[in-house]
Amino acid sequence: MVQLAVFGAGRIGQIHARNAAAQPGFHVKYIVDPVEGPARDALAKTTGARIVSAEEVFADPKLHAIVIASSTSSHAPLVHRAAETGKAVFCEKPVSLDFALTQSAVAAVVAAGIPCMLGFQRRYDAAFRALQARVASGEAGRLEHLIMQSRDPAPPPISYVKTSGGMFRDTAIHDVDMARFLLGEEIASVYAKGSCLISPEIGQAGDVDTLMITLTTESGRLAQVINCRRGPMGYDQRLEAVCAREVLRVENAPQGTLHVLRPEGTLAPPPMNYFLERYAQAYRDEMAGFAALITDGTPPLATARDGLEAQRLVEAAIRSHETGQVVVMAPGWRP
Amino acid sequence: MVQLAVFGAGRIGQIHARNAAAQPGFHVKYIVDPVEGPARDALAKTTGARIVSAEEVFADPKLHAIVIASSTSSHAPLVHRAAETGKAVFCEKPVSLDFALTQSAVAAVVAAGIPCMLGFQRRYDAAFRALQARVASGEAGRLEHLIMQSRDPAPPPISYVKTSGGMFRDTAIHDVDMARFLLGEEIASVYAKGSCLISPEIGQAGDVDTLMITLTTESGRLAQVINCRRGPMGYDQRLEAVCAREVLRVENAPQGTLHVLRPEGTLAPPPMNYFLERYAQAYRDEMAGFAALITDGTPPLATARDGLEAQRLVEAAIRSHETGQVVVMAPGWRP
Amino acid sequence: MVQLAVFGAGRIGQIHARNAAAQPGFHVKYIVDPVEGPARDALAKTTGARIVSAEEVFADPKLHAIVIASSTSSHAPLVHRAAETGKAVFCEKPVSLDFALTQSAVAAVVAAGIPCMLGFQRRYDAAFRALQARVASGEAGRLEHLIMQSRDPAPPPISYVKTSGGMFRDTAIHDVDMARFLLGEEIASVYAKGSCLISPEIGQAGDVDTLMITLTTESGRLAQVINCRRGPMGYDQRLEAVCAREVLRVENAPQGTLHVLRPEGTLAPPPMNYFLERYAQAYRDEMAGFAALITDGTPPLATARDGLEAQRLVEAAIRSHETGQVVVMAPGWRP
Amino acid sequence: MVQLAVFGAGRIGQIHARNAAAQPGFHVKYIVDPVEGPARDALAKTTGARIVSAEEVFADPKLHAIVIASSTSSHAPLVHRAAETGKAVFCEKPVSLDFALTQSAVAAVVAAGIPCMLGFQRRYDAAFRALQARVASGEAGRLEHLIMQSRDPAPPPISYVKTSGGMFRDTAIHDVDMARFLLGEEIASVYAKGSCLISPEIGQAGDVDTLMITLTTESGRLAQVINCRRGPMGYDQRLEAVCAREVLRVENAPQGTLHVLRPEGTLAPPPMNYFLERYAQAYRDEMAGFAALITDGTPPLATARDGLEAQRLVEAAIRSHETGQVVVMAPGWRP
Repeated sequence: MVQLAVFGAGRIGQIHARNAAAQPGFHVKYIVDPVEGPARDALAKTTGARIVSAEEVFADPKLHAIVIASSTSSHAPLVHRAAETGKAVFCEKPVSLDFALTQSAVAAVVAAGIPCMLGFQRRYDAAFRALQARVASGEAGRLEHLIMQSRDPAPPPISYVKTSGGMFRDTAIHDVDMARFLLGEEIASVYAKGSCLISPEIGQAGDVDTLMITLTTESGRLAQVINCRRGPMGYDQRLEAVCAREVLRVENAPQGTLHVLRPEGTLAPPPMNYFLERYAQAYRDEMAGFAALITDGTPPLATARDGLEAQRLVEAAIRSHETGQVVVMAPGWRP
Repeated sequence: MVQLAVFGAGRIGQIHARNAAAQPGFHVKYIVDPVEGPARDALAKTTGARIVSAEEVFADPKLHAIVIASSTSSHAPLVHRAAETGKAVFCEKPVSLDFALTQSAVAAVVAAGIPCMLGFQRRYDAAFRALQARVASGEAGRLEHLIMQSRDPAPPPISYVKTSGGMFRDTAIHDVDMARFLLGEEIASVYAKGSCLISPEIGQAGDVDTLMITLTTESGRLAQVINCRRGPMGYDQRLEAVCAREVLRVENAPQGTLHVLRPEGTLAPPPMNYFLERYAQAYRDEMAGFAALITDGTPPLATARDGLEAQRLVEAAIRSHETGQVVVMAPGWRP
Repeated sequence: MVQLAVFGAGRIGQIHARNAAAQPGFHVKYIVDPVEGPARDALAKTTGARIVSAEEVFADPKLHAIVIASSTSSHAPLVHRAAETGKAVFCEKPVSLDFALTQSAVAAVVAAGIPCMLGFQRRYDAAFRALQARVASGEAGRLEHLIMQSRDPAPPPISYVKTSGGMFRDTAIHDVDMARFLLGEEIASVYAKGSCLISPEIGQAGDVDTLMITLTTESGRLAQVINCRRGPMGYDQRLEAVCAREVLRVENAPQGTLHVLRPEGTLAPPPMNYFLERYAQAYRDEMAGFAALITDGTPPLATARDGLEAQRLVEAAIRSHETGQVVVMAPGWRP
Repeated sequence: MVQLAVFGAGRIGQIHARNAAAQPGFHVKYIVDPVEGPARDALAKTTGARIVSAEEVFADPKLHAIVIASSTSSHAPLVHRAAETGKAVFCEKPVSLDFALTQSAVAAVVAAGIPCMLGFQRRYDAAFRALQARVASGEAGRLEHLIMQSRDPAPPPISYVKTSGGMFRDTAIHDVDMARFLLGEEIASVYAKGSCLISPEIGQAGDVDTLMITLTTESGRLAQVINCRRGPMGYDQRLEAVCAREVLRVENAPQGTLHVLRPEGTLAPPPMNYFLERYAQAYRDEMAGFAALITDGTPPLATARDGLEAQRLVEAAIRSHETGQVVVMAPGWRP
């Protein structure tokens, strides 16, 4: 039985804790969250875990692994502690909003040789995974260019905007990671343009709410990331991979099956509400991936280095957005 | 140059006359229509035809063919005249609302050996034709059952209801013809149930506005015809052929390409307005089929006998509807 | 805490037992299944239930309710025992393959006044439920006719065919129930035609594998049920309700979100594999409906009488199929 | 009767000449094309025009208007002649591959005050037009960002690549024009990245076959143009306008209505083959727009200045692509 601790009993911590508890061979031994309250208690009860401090977790030599789903600033220190104590790590993205801290945490992971995976759940979604496999198998022909669109249903609270590192680090990071996952190649230049078109409050907080990023790979292939903080019809997340023989398209997942046909046209159901619904199965499969990493050494779909590279790209995008210039990414580029 | 006369300068006559005039090797020499007016004159002008009487048409030994698109009661007499004078015939369905008259007109065509095709334009529609070919080729596997739905955008004027022979003879005839076209086998029993649910005036005129017909072929395959006089979203004409390896589905043709995505869902454009838009190309291809029949003897997709058999089936459906009983169709069944 | 016993630890029993165990305020106290084995034991363990005999269940005065998901022949006797001992009943359809036995079991339920619901899970599916509500609210206009298609992915084993009461009682019963649910009116006549087109073994076992049923309501509205034992593209279950102002259409639920665009066209994902996937949420909502029935007396969407009437209709359909005649259903009609 | 001359009897000249001939009140008096052959003769015959030289056209004081669909290098001189002789002009895009020549031709048009429209037929397509109207009416909310994709079915012959001015001037010009049409605002900065990923021959000819262009308007709204020389499934031209309350999407127009459902999914028909099919009606409506311009002075949807501005944008895009830098477009920017 693999013994785990889960840090964070918030929205995403609950998902990971429950999926870990349901994973055969996994036992959630500890929940760590400084915020007392019924949510934390209920989670401990459901999963059969004890609520403890971080110290107790790292002092337990029988504990195998930790899941980091606590506040972002705690991620890097927890990764270091896991590296020091030899525990496997599943870390929600980003490792840190500070690129240098991410870099040193990833270096610690590599030096310690601990199993580590990053929480890019979209890589575990069946459709994106099948798309990647179809490209990798050669069936679709070479992937030539890529278009990724992601829109949240509505802008987040301003408090979240201020602490999340901004739209590039919070939202676009998933898309640039997907670009690397599918293109299988590093990025040579980045152009990004952000605007504040939806919510003046977001602009006052120093962030953008709409952005476009053009990525060019070392071999000249192109990817476009288009994000905004509001999808008029709800959560909107789609991707098109234009390959030599096929276009592969991941569409939104519809909320239901009822269609209404009227004189003005056919009304099909809107997309699923938000990422928790859309990626419910991906989160389960991601935790199964963590189990496979720990028990068999099966490489995860998203490594610590993938987290670092995605962050490098969003930092380059921020630089481009701020300077109005293209950022050419020589090897080892850093902000 | 094949010389033609077109009988009827109404809605459908204009289509056939214009398509005939545009057909390479065809010359529309005469238009026959007793109703004077600008529509008739404009049609004559556009097609380069002269307006003459029926007598002149049949007295012209150089005229090769006639297109019958005049009022229904004139069809059978014109077919007889064509048989007597050895002219090729394209006849709009039905040959007659009276089954016995249809039977004798078809017999006259067969006896005279004149080229003759019936105006079941759906057989010339690219989608239905491709479906038929895919079934005939064996690719789809045996066609096991068939579902056909046809709905007009709105009920016709009561004057039309009264003279068109009723909904079975006017509307369902296209679907039962399609059943024969696709199943390639005769029908052994018919059950039909009609209701008046949409328009009380139609009921007062002695007709139904909604109907379902179950056809069973000699080998036990099944087809369902569902018709009503009003598609809430417009002209609605679809077909599903459930085969052993595939389901083949003809969908409505959308009116445009603009989709509107809102919180309540995605609004796709409604179907094309009506049969003249939906089947514009099919009518052109049908006239090309008539040309091929005359010039090369290429068998048309719909023969005089197909017209007779489709009428036999709707007469059986009417009998079933009126008696509330299943009609078993022994060979040669007639109303 | 409501104490329940679940009869049957097979496929459907496991779903109901797990959903009952997850239902707040419900405790699955007993599992009853004569077949020993790991599945039964695992189910008892997961739900925290004890494996007991039927006698122990009915002897326990603290037990409130039973869920009947055992073999069909056991349903009616268990319903009678529940009526005698005053326990609430959730019974999988059908109550009995023998109409008279169903009738007496339903009479016992009514006489005893016990809460009782039937397992027509489709009534609890969000799409069918929303469709029913939209019709009931008047928004869609009067429902004039209805088309229901259901196809299993592949024919069942012959052993199942022989014991399930045949395709009418096993498959069509869901569609005729849906017709009653949506039309909100009783049926006045039934025409049914079945054929054996897919599997000769099914024919040898005395059953059909393809069927069409025409239902006419007392007020003349029409419904068509089309079933077959094999959907070439998988599990195919769709419905169209043609109303005065809208067509409401329940489509298949797609298996995923990846589309492949190639020269021959756009390939969209096939439907979800089978009813367990498609109706996973409906089964959960159905059990929540049972909880609401027991705790608040909220009427269930499917009552014992609904079960009886659906069976009456399939018996009429069987009679029609066997005699080749329309069955007119005077009040109280019975096979 | 408006008397017209059509320059060019090639593919696009034939379309315009035929549409002009079919336009009520229009008479195609002359066809001008130096290339003798059956195509030119047939066009003259169909339209009832005489084949003459350019000199004869401009010497005819009774001629009202010219349609320029000849080779690109002839466009600007013909526009100048039309301005000098006071004839209305319909000019296929681009006016010239040389921006300065375009500028002086447009200046001549403005100075002469002749009616002039540019051949951006997409502006006349019903879907793009309805989209523009829906944005302009305010119904959709402010258009915040725009994504345009255009792909030809297959790379053009290298001879065409070499003479067409390259992919930016030939293909992207339609999309940047559409951006201006929908955004209703000028562009403040352009970033473009082109690659050669599909056809090495195109690269050897000094052109790209894949490109992405980011346009930022003066108020900070964003538009993305994505083009490549090969749509794996055929002619692929789509647009999404993300507005405050709706997403408006122009989809491809399907080639037919037959869908094939198989275990691997549902195969919908591919897009219409190419622009001539897709925009057949738009070309007719465009010519009707020219008629309205001449007879009533109705402003055309695309003016000479629109042609100039679209060329300015593609020149900026080329500059960006060549320098690897963002081009900031101060007022009056020119290459």
